[in-house]
Amino acid sequence: MNARHVAIVGATGAVGREFLDVLAARRFPLRSLRLLASPRSAGQRLPFAGEMLPVEALGPDAFRGVDVALFSAGGSVSKEHAARAVAAGAIVVDNSSAFRLDDGVPLVVPEVNAGALAGHRGLIANPNCSTILAALALWPLHQVAGLRAVIAATYQAASGAGQQAMAELRSSTAAVLRGEPAPPPHALPRSLAFNVFPQVDVFQPDGYTREEDKLLYELRKILGLPQLRVDATCVRVPVERCHSEALVVDLERPLAVDAAAAVLAAAPGLELVPAMAEPPYPMPRERSGRDAVAVGRLRRGRVFAHGLTFWLVGDQLRKGAALNAVQIAEQV
Amino acid sequence: MNARHVAIVGATGAVGREFLDVLAARRFPLRSLRLLASPRSAGQRLPFAGEMLPVEALGPDAFRGVDVALFSAGGSVSKEHAARAVAAGAIVVDNSSAFRLDDGVPLVVPEVNAGALAGHRGLIANPNCSTILAALALWPLHQVAGLRAVIAATYQAASGAGQQAMAELRSSTAAVLRGEPAPPPHALPRSLAFNVFPQVDVFQPDGYTREEDKLLYELRKILGLPQLRVDATCVRVPVERCHSEALVVDLERPLAVDAAAAVLAAAPGLELVPAMAEPPYPMPRERSGRDAVAVGRLRRGRVFAHGLTFWLVGDQLRKGAALNAVQIAEQV
Repeated sequence: MNARHVAIVGATGAVGREFLDVLAARRFPLRSLRLLASPRSAGQRLPFAGEMLPVEALGPDAFRGVDVALFSAGGSVSKEHAARAVAAGAIVVDNSSAFRLDDGVPLVVPEVNAGALAGHRGLIANPNCSTILAALALWPLHQVAGLRAVIAATYQAASGAGQQAMAELRSSTAAVLRGEPAPPPHALPRSLAFNVFPQVDVFQPDGYTREEDKLLYELRKILGLPQLRVDATCVRVPVERCHSEALVVDLERPLAVDAAAAVLAAAPGLELVPAMAEPPYPMPRERSGRDAVAVGRLRRGRVFAHGLTFWLVGDQLRKGAALNAVQIAEQV
Repeated sequence: MNARHVAIVGATGAVGREFLDVLAARRFPLRSLRLLASPRSAGQRLPFAGEMLPVEALGPDAFRGVDVALFSAGGSVSKEHAARAVAAGAIVVDNSSAFRLDDGVPLVVPEVNAGALAGHRGLIANPNCSTILAALALWPLHQVAGLRAVIAATYQAASGAGQQAMAELRSSTAAVLRGEPAPPPHALPRSLAFNVFPQVDVFQPDGYTREEDKLLYELRKILGLPQLRVDATCVRVPVERCHSEALVVDLERPLAVDAAAAVLAAAPGLELVPAMAEPPYPMPRERSGRDAVAVGRLRRGRVFAHGLTFWLVGDQLRKGAALNAVQIAEQV
């Protein structure tokens, strides 16, 4: 791959900083790296590969000469600037939900549907974090036994709501430990100190949240299964940066637990934690900063005729966001 | 109801202390109250209704003259002493899992199957905490539409593992906030500081945990549905004392969301939190110390033809343990 001129939009955010780590760790071939953010953050410097790079305000000429623009500054910034970046000749990998379900915009988990990149028109969408993690495990199962339905309950970290939410989790927890009432939340809809709440993103008229809808509609698009049924309950838990998911799947054809284990153990991007490992299941604390998504507690389901039940954990900032986007950039 | 001589076995534990609160709050008619615990705890005094009551060691004559013995000191204590209490003429309400599935031992959630108390032989089992909470919501739905299957993911508080686990959650969280590594866990199998782990109770050969089996087998017995399918993933979360559950149910007959809401709102022991409430769903922090189990986020399911999906939260020490046992004692 030829070295590229890369820009990161939203460089000072939780995912933005993770982009820097991932580009360095993967030795992404860079000709230049431009860090872009809101005017408020301009003038900051962020460490990259031993240097301190300046953060620039995202202005009208920001994308001149840029080959690849990695966006992670929210849907409104993407809607305003992504087309401009494409017009300037950049390939945009967008981490917001703004374009994910648009026709003509590939929505890609490279281990699953890298082929969808072929038809891109300059803009490629990076899926939602919970979706990426689930897709990595669902795809190999679908290939061998046909996927009919998924029931998901998530245990999502503060990192999914950004850096301020991570700080808020720590400060509100410290307040509760001091015997004070939990301070009013700002970055999160509710206090997360020693609490969980079943809301990630906003509510839709049918009572599901947008996060729950993302799991349904993004999985259908990524897996190429327009009839797939997905019932999700997405819950925020007091964890800093890894998402966990309890998944129950209904398959078209029988698949023994041993055979499923072999399929998952061989799948790219996944690690299977066997029941005799120590610990015998993945947990968010020990998966932080790791690229692979870990599957554990694989067992025969108890509801569907051909069902499997399992648990998975992945670093939301890593494979759930920055790593997946950089993998996309490597492939286009 | 005539006033009774009551003994609490395991009085110094988390559930034991809750028994004292619940007996006082419900003005349970007491002729006497004896607090029993291990020899290690004997000599302590615990507050009850303005007095300080002494804790006695659980000895051979502990149940002489006792009408009702509330056991919550673990399965081994129940196995050793429950039969002795019954032989001494006491009615035992046992909070351990020792006898729950035994023929001839009623397993009772009073709002659901109080009728099962009629045949008791001195020993009545109090169900597992997660089971009680789920049963309260599943029973009224079953009555109107027939229950076929349940898929549950739980978010269980430290309280379910006892008082030491609650203290360990606080101390390990404080250590992590100070920048130290999480201390090795003692009361819990893993550190719960900013972490979740999919293990409550011990693993069985098929990969499910005993807690997950309890949901299956205890729900079958309580609801009187020997064919009911229940697939559970039980997860410990860093919360102090309320359990939450994400439930997906498959019904035999259609039941509109509005009709289900009316049924749940009218069900004893339940509160329905409507989507327009503030907060629009129950959370463990604000449900602590409350008797009713709260159901929220009720919506049409996306997998089953006649499915409903919802969220519930209940105080594990209250309705999940002490309150349910005292309600049983009130009815026998």
